[in-house]
Amino acid sequence: MSWFDDSIMARKGVAKGQAGATHSITEASQGKYHYVYGAYVEPVLTIDPGAVVSAETHDAFEGAIKAETDKPSEILNFPYLNPQNGPIWVNGAEKGDCLAVYIESVVPRGPQPRGTTVIMPEFGGLVPTADTAMLTTPLPERVKKLEITAEKGTVWNDRITLPYEPFIGTIGTAPEIEAISSLVPDYYGGNMDLPDVAPGAVIYLPVNTEGAYLYVGDCHAAQGDGELCGVAIEHPTVTTLRVDLIKGWTIRTPRLENEKFYMTIGSARPMEDAARGAYRELIRWMARDFGFEEIDAYMLLTQCGRIRLGNMVDPKYTVGASILKSISGIAR
Amino acid sequence: MSWFDDSIMARKGVAKGQAGATHSITEASQGKYHYVYGAYVEPVLTIDPGAVVSAETHDAFEGAIKAETDKPSEILNFPYLNPQNGPIWVNGAEKGDCLAVYIESVVPRGPQPRGTTVIMPEFGGLVPTADTAMLTTPLPERVKKLEITAEKGTVWNDRITLPYEPFIGTIGTAPEIEAISSLVPDYYGGNMDLPDVAPGAVIYLPVNTEGAYLYVGDCHAAQGDGELCGVAIEHPTVTTLRVDLIKGWTIRTPRLENEKFYMTIGSARPMEDAARGAYRELIRWMARDFGFEEIDAYMLLTQCGRIRLGNMVDPKYTVGASILKSISGIAR
Amino acid sequence: MSWFDDSIMARKGVAKGQAGATHSITEASQGKYHYVYGAYVEPVLTIDPGAVVSAETHDAFEGAIKAETDKPSEILNFPYLNPQNGPIWVNGAEKGDCLAVYIESVVPRGPQPRGTTVIMPEFGGLVPTADTAMLTTPLPERVKKLEITAEKGTVWNDRITLPYEPFIGTIGTAPEIEAISSLVPDYYGGNMDLPDVAPGAVIYLPVNTEGAYLYVGDCHAAQGDGELCGVAIEHPTVTTLRVDLIKGWTIRTPRLENEKFYMTIGSARPMEDAARGAYRELIRWMARDFGFEEIDAYMLLTQCGRIRLGNMVDPKYTVGASILKSISGIAR
Amino acid sequence: MSWFDDSIMARKGVAKGQAGATHSITEASQGKYHYVYGAYVEPVLTIDPGAVVSAETHDAFEGAIKAETDKPSEILNFPYLNPQNGPIWVNGAEKGDCLAVYIESVVPRGPQPRGTTVIMPEFGGLVPTADTAMLTTPLPERVKKLEITAEKGTVWNDRITLPYEPFIGTIGTAPEIEAISSLVPDYYGGNMDLPDVAPGAVIYLPVNTEGAYLYVGDCHAAQGDGELCGVAIEHPTVTTLRVDLIKGWTIRTPRLENEKFYMTIGSARPMEDAARGAYRELIRWMARDFGFEEIDAYMLLTQCGRIRLGNMVDPKYTVGASILKSISGIAR
Repeated sequence: MSWFDDSIMARKGVAKGQAGATHSITEASQGKYHYVYGAYVEPVLTIDPGAVVSAETHDAFEGAIKAETDKPSEILNFPYLNPQNGPIWVNGAEKGDCLAVYIESVVPRGPQPRGTTVIMPEFGGLVPTADTAMLTTPLPERVKKLEITAEKGTVWNDRITLPYEPFIGTIGTAPEIEAISSLVPDYYGGNMDLPDVAPGAVIYLPVNTEGAYLYVGDCHAAQGDGELCGVAIEHPTVTTLRVDLIKGWTIRTPRLENEKFYMTIGSARPMEDAARGAYRELIRWMARDFGFEEIDAYMLLTQCGRIRLGNMVDPKYTVGASILKSISGIAR
Repeated sequence: MSWFDDSIMARKGVAKGQAGATHSITEASQGKYHYVYGAYVEPVLTIDPGAVVSAETHDAFEGAIKAETDKPSEILNFPYLNPQNGPIWVNGAEKGDCLAVYIESVVPRGPQPRGTTVIMPEFGGLVPTADTAMLTTPLPERVKKLEITAEKGTVWNDRITLPYEPFIGTIGTAPEIEAISSLVPDYYGGNMDLPDVAPGAVIYLPVNTEGAYLYVGDCHAAQGDGELCGVAIEHPTVTTLRVDLIKGWTIRTPRLENEKFYMTIGSARPMEDAARGAYRELIRWMARDFGFEEIDAYMLLTQCGRIRLGNMVDPKYTVGASILKSISGIAR
Repeated sequence: MSWFDDSIMARKGVAKGQAGATHSITEASQGKYHYVYGAYVEPVLTIDPGAVVSAETHDAFEGAIKAETDKPSEILNFPYLNPQNGPIWVNGAEKGDCLAVYIESVVPRGPQPRGTTVIMPEFGGLVPTADTAMLTTPLPERVKKLEITAEKGTVWNDRITLPYEPFIGTIGTAPEIEAISSLVPDYYGGNMDLPDVAPGAVIYLPVNTEGAYLYVGDCHAAQGDGELCGVAIEHPTVTTLRVDLIKGWTIRTPRLENEKFYMTIGSARPMEDAARGAYRELIRWMARDFGFEEIDAYMLLTQCGRIRLGNMVDPKYTVGASILKSISGIAR
Repeated sequence: MSWFDDSIMARKGVAKGQAGATHSITEASQGKYHYVYGAYVEPVLTIDPGAVVSAETHDAFEGAIKAETDKPSEILNFPYLNPQNGPIWVNGAEKGDCLAVYIESVVPRGPQPRGTTVIMPEFGGLVPTADTAMLTTPLPERVKKLEITAEKGTVWNDRITLPYEPFIGTIGTAPEIEAISSLVPDYYGGNMDLPDVAPGAVIYLPVNTEGAYLYVGDCHAAQGDGELCGVAIEHPTVTTLRVDLIKGWTIRTPRLENEKFYMTIGSARPMEDAARGAYRELIRWMARDFGFEEIDAYMLLTQCGRIRLGNMVDPKYTVGASILKSISGIAR
């Protein structure tokens, strides 16, 4: 994990990115899961920087969709969707700081078939929705239940098996005074559905209020760019995070670092605004921390910047903009 | 006010649209103003349907911008902007009901020059913003303080005086579990900045949670379509509302009725989605309550529907879609 | 017509806005109608500034939809839609000049029922299209044939008659080197579907190439804001234009003037970009010709600018931004 | 090149994807380069399916920007930008057919420094443009001239060298009746600026009119996703294409195939519409040619579809949607 030693988390974290005390949040200790990102509830756990937290996450439907004959529109109870573990209070975290969260692992749990994806009315990238309202008749509802193992992946059908490439669909901190649906991605993180938020990566999250209030949930066993029909391969997991705190490193929106690249994450509509926001933040990062003039970073990213589409289905679309560490002169 | 006798409010309201007890919310009785729309705070007032409530509203800057030499970026403290009166608990209101709010009057108050408009960084329709991020340098900040009277209007300069055409910039109910910045417009109302929300009109608001939690604030002395630079002629007022309750009339997004038209209000990005949402809701209204087939309403609105742009500057854009009552066969 | 005497057309036109020689373009003299705006064809008529031209326009379907039992998808032959009269060569017109076109009249012609509107697949504001691609099944096709007279208007059904409020759906000049479908609106005019392009108004069009190549067609007997289902009340007409030339008045996009306001017209996607383009051009106009600083115009339009939505269905959406002449200090 | 033997080009092409006669288009034989995609000019070359054509392409500025002290806004003469080789008439091509173009090589030519990128006013993804109009002052103009070799890549500065990863920025066929600026990408191809259109790939282009009228130009030595500032590393090349014809394989928009994936290409605004168009076309392709039900393809792409952003700066944004051939059961 040599790259990690040189990561921003390892260099700037209060705990230097090193693992401290371990904690777990089980279904029982979590009790009631949460459906908004906010600071109006009591933390379920209090930790010091460096703590390692394992959380039993539910799938996005809280396990309510059990059979392929289920009708999502009858079972699901909006807005009580996308249940989140947490919030976790991080000692010492204050507005203007940054949480650094190293994703240690995402491990599937629960009885088979533990994976679920669905077509449901008014949700998805190629159907009319509450946001992109139209008059045509919705597609028929459909549920697909899937066997998932970390070793074999997801058995889609007789011919197709998708590798297990798990990541966290929803993670973030509390806004300062808002409490926003866990279906939404925004400046504090939330429902970004970005496959790079995966084991082995560090996600950096802005701290907007004392204690940070970290939430996590909604893990996916696999997902394509855009999460096209709106529902990835949802599954319950044990997700393990190492949480550090960077004092005084103020970021406006989530960032991510892994072995290969630095990434900024923008969530907005229309999609070009998500891309603009991500790229501008990357330019500002390169200007503040990597010795570039803004205009030089702008010209260079034109030639080598990379875009990853997270979701094109949530209330805001999410885009990651990144630059490879391998490009000479970029890394620290 | 004969049209009102035939309004939905008069016909369906628990109080039949008639004025009941009067209440007032002064600066003193309000105490702390609010910056989110949500149900996480105690109501400042409890009323029965029919109640008439006069509220002392602040301007969107809570009066903090006092002189043309002020620098908004130094004075304003995001997210503590757009202060709201309320919330008002409406007895009997339950999820699935509708609040009908007849706007009796908006009267300017406070010492002259009581009007304020500003150019500030990262805000406005023709400048880069946090949402539409760009690299160009912001426009210079500017403050304009304006004399306003109901009789004379707003004195813009020696040559131009704008008539006093006041309306409510921000009004709405609490979301069910969210608490959303009062800078945002959405399904529950909020910062719509739509000039039709004016004295003499009835706005219909969905009730998302018991008690409804009605908020109001942000009155404008005048505003063009789109609120182009992001800041209308902001001013403190006494705003008087008659609040009725329609049981079991479930609406998804705000609606409005006045002497001349029925309107639905959509807030979304991009702007075409706001227009789509407003028009679809109008079609569904015509189908449910006015005897049209959906497709007939769609074809008819193609020929006579009207669009009013509220804002093109807030986190969601707001559009009103309307149909004239005068078109034979539309009105009840 | 006193306002006209003070119009830009009357003040700046080569012919001072006065009517000169009269010409007509009949179906016979037109021969082949055109489906692109471009300079690759021979002009059908050559005129001097001041000329008055009456053109027999077809409806947008070239009269091919004759009965309510017709199926548009079987009859229409894309891209041979929206037939245009012209092009008209204007003597003296050069790149950088401006055509000023006073719309004298639009008169319905042809046998009854002469009006047509339709629902057709992949076209309209509330259905999936080639641009906003989705998977849901199209609405059923539908044709509505309508009786239209200038006196009575359009008989929609037993209960509803819409007043005759005709305007020109498509008008413009040739691009410099492009030839663009007459279904598209853009910087040269084209398929704007903006109801203000009506008798009594002057539309100003940029000249992009020698001779200007004026085209016109696609007149509507009525249309709501946005032309929601994509097809207004289409009808064949005799449309009479007075065409003048303004030398050296270079405009980037179409403008319009009538008794009440000055308007700029933007066509773009998403819709906010159409509004941005229109408003910026209005600001620049106010700065160049009306004695404003740009930033003052920006602040003033925030308080009194007006937006008219033309179409929300064509390949680009069209928005008009205007300012009332009545606001003291704006008019010349 | 075993994958090629199983490509659609090899299986369905008139020439079975095999190389036939060789041709070249030099600067001299090309003569006048073209700035629109259309069928209003004489072909510069006529070929049979299977022909191999080498073209001397200019850079997007036709070599006019020679020094870092040049000011693009003074040198460039809009709309005479992005010069194209061609058109090439393909014998036997008729509307409804498909051109299959295997990109054999892109080789840099011309004196050093042969690479050019610039910042120019009103163009780029993070600045106001004619489409996204704003009032802020443009960034300062800037020109960067770069040494490029195929072996070493592009020398960006002392610290950074970018690998030579050339591709074709602009390629396509003529629209049926339109002639559209070579700055625009659309259904016929054009200025897609998609890095996957690279040596070793096959691009499939719809034939809209007899002879197809193939154009090509605008090669880039490297480009990041989105072509952020609007100008990649532009350079003159010798580009070699093998052109085959697939009779009766009607496609609506460009497609691409290489060793690893099948891709569909959408160009639209806003960006989500480009993604929607690309994904819908991929679903339809999977349904027509790969044995999927549409809804199954929709659900599967949700889990494994991939998005590549071409440009976020041209008049339409371009997005490629793809599926890996390696996913069991997808490939033929």
